Amino acid sequence: MRRLRMGMIGGGPGAFIGPVHRIAAELDREIELVAGAFSSNAGRSSDAGKSYCIDPTRAYPDVSTMLSAEAARGDGMDFVTIASPNDHHLAAARAALGAGIPVLSDKPATATLSEARELAAIVARSAVPYGLTYTYSGYPLVREARARIAAGDLGIIRKVVVEYQQGWLAHDAAGKQAEWRLDPARAGEGGAIADIGVHAFHLAEFVTGRRVTQLLADLAAVVPGRSLDDDCQVLLRFDNGARGVLIASQIALGERNGLRLRVYGDRGALNWQQESPNVLVLHHLDGRTELIQAGDTALSDDARRASRTPGGHPEGYLEAFANLYRDFARQLRGEAGSLVPGIDDGLRGMAFIHLAVTTSRDRAGWTQFEV
Amino acid sequence: MRRLRMGMIGGGPGAFIGPVHRIAAELDREIELVAGAFSSNAGRSSDAGKSYCIDPTRAYPDVSTMLSAEAARGDGMDFVTIASPNDHHLAAARAALGAGIPVLSDKPATATLSEARELAAIVARSAVPYGLTYTYSGYPLVREARARIAAGDLGIIRKVVVEYQQGWLAHDAAGKQAEWRLDPARAGEGGAIADIGVHAFHLAEFVTGRRVTQLLADLAAVVPGRSLDDDCQVLLRFDNGARGVLIASQIALGERNGLRLRVYGDRGALNWQQESPNVLVLHHLDGRTELIQAGDTALSDDARRASRTPGGHPEGYLEAFANLYRDFARQLRGEAGSLVPGIDDGLRGMAFIHLAVTTSRDRAGWTQFEV
Amino acid sequence: MRRLRMGMIGGGPGAFIGPVHRIAAELDREIELVAGAFSSNAGRSSDAGKSYCIDPTRAYPDVSTMLSAEAARGDGMDFVTIASPNDHHLAAARAALGAGIPVLSDKPATATLSEARELAAIVARSAVPYGLTYTYSGYPLVREARARIAAGDLGIIRKVVVEYQQGWLAHDAAGKQAEWRLDPARAGEGGAIADIGVHAFHLAEFVTGRRVTQLLADLAAVVPGRSLDDDCQVLLRFDNGARGVLIASQIALGERNGLRLRVYGDRGALNWQQESPNVLVLHHLDGRTELIQAGDTALSDDARRASRTPGGHPEGYLEAFANLYRDFARQLRGEAGSLVPGIDDGLRGMAFIHLAVTTSRDRAGWTQFEV
Amino acid sequence: MRRLRMGMIGGGPGAFIGPVHRIAAELDREIELVAGAFSSNAGRSSDAGKSYCIDPTRAYPDVSTMLSAEAARGDGMDFVTIASPNDHHLAAARAALGAGIPVLSDKPATATLSEARELAAIVARSAVPYGLTYTYSGYPLVREARARIAAGDLGIIRKVVVEYQQGWLAHDAAGKQAEWRLDPARAGEGGAIADIGVHAFHLAEFVTGRRVTQLLADLAAVVPGRSLDDDCQVLLRFDNGARGVLIASQIALGERNGLRLRVYGDRGALNWQQESPNVLVLHHLDGRTELIQAGDTALSDDARRASRTPGGHPEGYLEAFANLYRDFARQLRGEAGSLVPGIDDGLRGMAFIHLAVTTSRDRAGWTQFEV
Repeated sequence: MRRLRMGMIGGGPGAFIGPVHRIAAELDREIELVAGAFSSNAGRSSDAGKSYCIDPTRAYPDVSTMLSAEAARGDGMDFVTIASPNDHHLAAARAALGAGIPVLSDKPATATLSEARELAAIVARSAVPYGLTYTYSGYPLVREARARIAAGDLGIIRKVVVEYQQGWLAHDAAGKQAEWRLDPARAGEGGAIADIGVHAFHLAEFVTGRRVTQLLADLAAVVPGRSLDDDCQVLLRFDNGARGVLIASQIALGERNGLRLRVYGDRGALNWQQESPNVLVLHHLDGRTELIQAGDTALSDDARRASRTPGGHPEGYLEAFANLYRDFARQLRGEAGSLVPGIDDGLRGMAFIHLAVTTSRDRAGWTQFEV
Repeated sequence: MRRLRMGMIGGGPGAFIGPVHRIAAELDREIELVAGAFSSNAGRSSDAGKSYCIDPTRAYPDVSTMLSAEAARGDGMDFVTIASPNDHHLAAARAALGAGIPVLSDKPATATLSEARELAAIVARSAVPYGLTYTYSGYPLVREARARIAAGDLGIIRKVVVEYQQGWLAHDAAGKQAEWRLDPARAGEGGAIADIGVHAFHLAEFVTGRRVTQLLADLAAVVPGRSLDDDCQVLLRFDNGARGVLIASQIALGERNGLRLRVYGDRGALNWQQESPNVLVLHHLDGRTELIQAGDTALSDDARRASRTPGGHPEGYLEAFANLYRDFARQLRGEAGSLVPGIDDGLRGMAFIHLAVTTSRDRAGWTQFEV
Repeated sequence: MRRLRMGMIGGGPGAFIGPVHRIAAELDREIELVAGAFSSNAGRSSDAGKSYCIDPTRAYPDVSTMLSAEAARGDGMDFVTIASPNDHHLAAARAALGAGIPVLSDKPATATLSEARELAAIVARSAVPYGLTYTYSGYPLVREARARIAAGDLGIIRKVVVEYQQGWLAHDAAGKQAEWRLDPARAGEGGAIADIGVHAFHLAEFVTGRRVTQLLADLAAVVPGRSLDDDCQVLLRFDNGARGVLIASQIALGERNGLRLRVYGDRGALNWQQESPNVLVLHHLDGRTELIQAGDTALSDDARRASRTPGGHPEGYLEAFANLYRDFARQLRGEAGSLVPGIDDGLRGMAFIHLAVTTSRDRAGWTQFEV
Repeated sequence: MRRLRMGMIGGGPGAFIGPVHRIAAELDREIELVAGAFSSNAGRSSDAGKSYCIDPTRAYPDVSTMLSAEAARGDGMDFVTIASPNDHHLAAARAALGAGIPVLSDKPATATLSEARELAAIVARSAVPYGLTYTYSGYPLVREARARIAAGDLGIIRKVVVEYQQGWLAHDAAGKQAEWRLDPARAGEGGAIADIGVHAFHLAEFVTGRRVTQLLADLAAVVPGRSLDDDCQVLLRFDNGARGVLIASQIALGERNGLRLRVYGDRGALNWQQESPNVLVLHHLDGRTELIQAGDTALSDDARRASRTPGGHPEGYLEAFANLYRDFARQLRGEAGSLVPGIDDGLRGMAFIHLAVTTSRDRAGWTQFEV
């Protein structure tokens, strides 16, 4: 078994998510960052290459140069990861897939729903692997929650409360992170709904195994001067009739990264919180409340495979992210068991963003969820 | 100073809330239960009198007998508390107020909005004190939260998330408690929305000092066979433009009594949970997170007056309830400082229930909140 | 069934514990405060009587006056509670028991071990009921913990960690509460060890059902100028060979009332914390961790009888205290099921204080625990 | 800047700690695993090399072969990490240091105190860098705690409670992990005291900046048939007179990896728990309680440098471990700011183990702590 060779698109200087992708990819030593088109500015791309300690000749000025140069090498990259802002996702993915290079992309899949539809068609045609890093689906106990529900431990799902609360945009924020997220030209049509709401949406579907079929959205730009939403409340219906509430906010002052999921069934219920990711609270029909912890011996295979340390040795965000990379590597090697989201999840996420933004703007009330 | 003499309407055998009212009323020795019309069944009323150890001659078969008999005594009751099911509230309050006897009533004020309007008119005409036991407003740290917001510590309120989650009606439940709550003839037009949702509604208004001006309600009877709602999700707008989500459910399996409030302002935020009532989490604009605890020396007067023990000696539900009684006693003695909700809060609560039920049924979307 | 009539010794103006005893005694309406010798100062005793709203003629200037006056009434008191400082306990209890009046005393039983021995002899001779309010043994989940261990759920007890951390004496404190506790003439030979350490000691024995047989104590007066200990660390051995650590401190700045108990057996373990008294964490041999909550349907009889409200409606310190009074009332009525500690527990507590103080002073190392 | 090349001693198949060292070393891409003598069995060493995906020719059968082969390469390793059982530490470190190769060793430094003294002399003579991975000192909030105390925020330290509770050896355990730890020939003279107690000891000294000067130890082998301790309670005195309790147990059933530290000063106090490593509770003299969180803007430089992600994105055990590697890399590059423990800490740790074991066995009581 050799390490897979990864190229990175985006993730250059000042980016938060680039180094995170790099750490996650390499954590299990199954993947190695070897190349990158880290920035559309050649100098910045080269600087990023240095900061990652890669071969200087493999820090490319743009994606197409990278694709052709790597294709010409005997030890060229095996896949690319896309860590650029949303508006670059489609072009980057199209180019890579067109060159037969598998893609693992940061979420959301694209900047707009129509782009996502285009990308879905490309993925379908190309038959080249495409994955999407909805990071939170990599946590061991998220996978445990999913496995328990799939096994029927909660019975029929009746109610989902999912929230993603952040406070860092409670006021005008400076810095590269805030800048592109608040700019419709770069972030797409959604603000908080696209940045974090879509994570909550995916988490709810991923864990419950149910699909949203209707929604009613109430989005707003609370901080004066913003054109994109920074606070979202969305009511949901799932395909089995279950009811849901999704709350996503970036003006929830004091909140760091408050992604929380509660699922209530007719035989059990569960509660997971991203900031304490190694505990899953499970309520049983008979009144017992259990604390499931990462590393417990009774965990499902999916959860156990997603841990590297014994119980009580906390793993966190980077390890959850690494689980997606490890899954993607498995997929590329033709092994079973990958839980990496794919283009369908990406398309659903973009439909969610689009429907939430447009139906809220139009005060359209309950709306059918269609991809 | 002598102890005030209290009569009780309802609260007879099998009732949960009657003994709670009795304990709460007497906790501080400013009030004494001396009489009661505990049941519309004379034998049961008499039994209840025995269980409360009161003078057997003062356990009356009905309200009007109690009112006239007590009026005839030199040591007759000073006020009544109403602890009967919702559909008896109006008649009981009308009779007592008509006799010049102050009323402290369990919530909701009445069974229907039109009854509440009638009661409001009676209260206004009679000029006899009327209070309503929205229990949770009696917690020291709820009062602290209110005082902090009133003092401007949170700045402009932008977002409120209030939820009240219970699981005890996740399945058909037996027993007197479940029975009348699920029966439209006795509970009124609302199920969970009237039983617990209205608590959440009052808590949000009480703490923030803001009034709801619009709502969008999504209620359902999830357990088959029910005619009243058991799961509620409501979007809110407040008079200053703040946005809100209110969730109330009695099918949230595993939840005991999960009343939780989060308020986000532009200068701070707070988080309180009824099941851990002696801690209030406060987020400051500068990034600091503080744990305020009952008994802390820096608490507001309102909060300090509502505690009986030093920090670290937990007080709970009964003490919160007792704070409402103590406040009402103050009010009857003409003292300042009472925070007991009154008929206005009762009327608003009934309007909330009515609007939530009817606009959800009609899928009316955003609706003006009018009393 | 009539309410039992209680007299109080001590608990006058400025006392924290007097009003707490009053509330606890009356909470369930099985007991009524009717008389008191609240202070050795007649005027202060009379003032206290007024603050408690009792018949002014029954606020007595001293214990013997109270005993004889009450004995002369047809409706005289049924028992006394002792809420005075430690150095008054023996005299008060001796007088009451001598008059055939049952005694419920605040802890510790007396000011010194030799006094406790004297009291134990008196109790034995008199055959009049004597109880001791180790408050924390009244919590429902403490009783659940005890019941679980008695039922063998934890297997053989191997290790006990019990701590009682407070910070209010981290610096020179003013006020009546601090004053007598820091004065050897009034508090007895122990400081923190007598004020709170003895609670921890009793809790450990009460819950585990095991007896301490050896100890090694390390006490100190950390704040300069003190003659009594304010910080205690004690190693323990129990009669079955189990090992223990007891930590008690009043200089643990920031701690409110941090009484915490962990018990580890060979088949299970548990964890209870007084400041969150309605949750008991239970670890099972198979790796499961369970959260037991007050109000759960599967609780033991002892725990269920000690709750007044459904799960999720927190009860606290006052209700725990009230459980001891209710138990004592049962005992006086000849009913079974009382868990009120008695003079044996009192004697063991005094032996614990005495041994801890003296062996620490003498650096005596491991010492046999003998009463 | 190039990546430093690391060789590993031990850490072969079945080892928990080898892969952890590898991940930690490589996490920040400043270090790369290139070689190893992973086992004293050549075949197993070779297998381990494959599992790590390193050049097969660099998986050596023993340490001396590795040292000479690597020295002969132009791209030979820059330092070694030692991840073998305790009884191999001295020989491995001696060989590496003798060859001029810096050493980063797992704790404890050696198997016995006399070995540690020998190693300390070697380190002193060689002047080659030597570091020790007391993992928990790598957590951002442990470093914050240290920085706050160093800045005087807690005033004079008065009391330390440090505990390390595990339950995985509550019964006879199978597997490689348990095996060598329970075997005196391989683990050294201490069981739990050497495996985890020494972590607690180091953490207490690291955070407080104080040195233990006296101890009183009470160790036992609770599970029948063991010759090494599995449960430890140790009383401490620090150089400024502060008092301490250290509890370490591997029979604390239900506990995963419960390392917890509380420090009480005369102006503040703090509380940190390894299983929730991203929160630090800080009590202030004025009664305020603050929750410090990883990623907060007001953190010290030491804490901020030890985080890779924004607040709310949990980092854990692997990242803490990686901080030690990053520090060691800095040290090797001649940069300032490393907080990696060194041979002095190692020597103190071995003295702690030795004194705890021998004085407990001899029931020696309070003993001077001397290295």
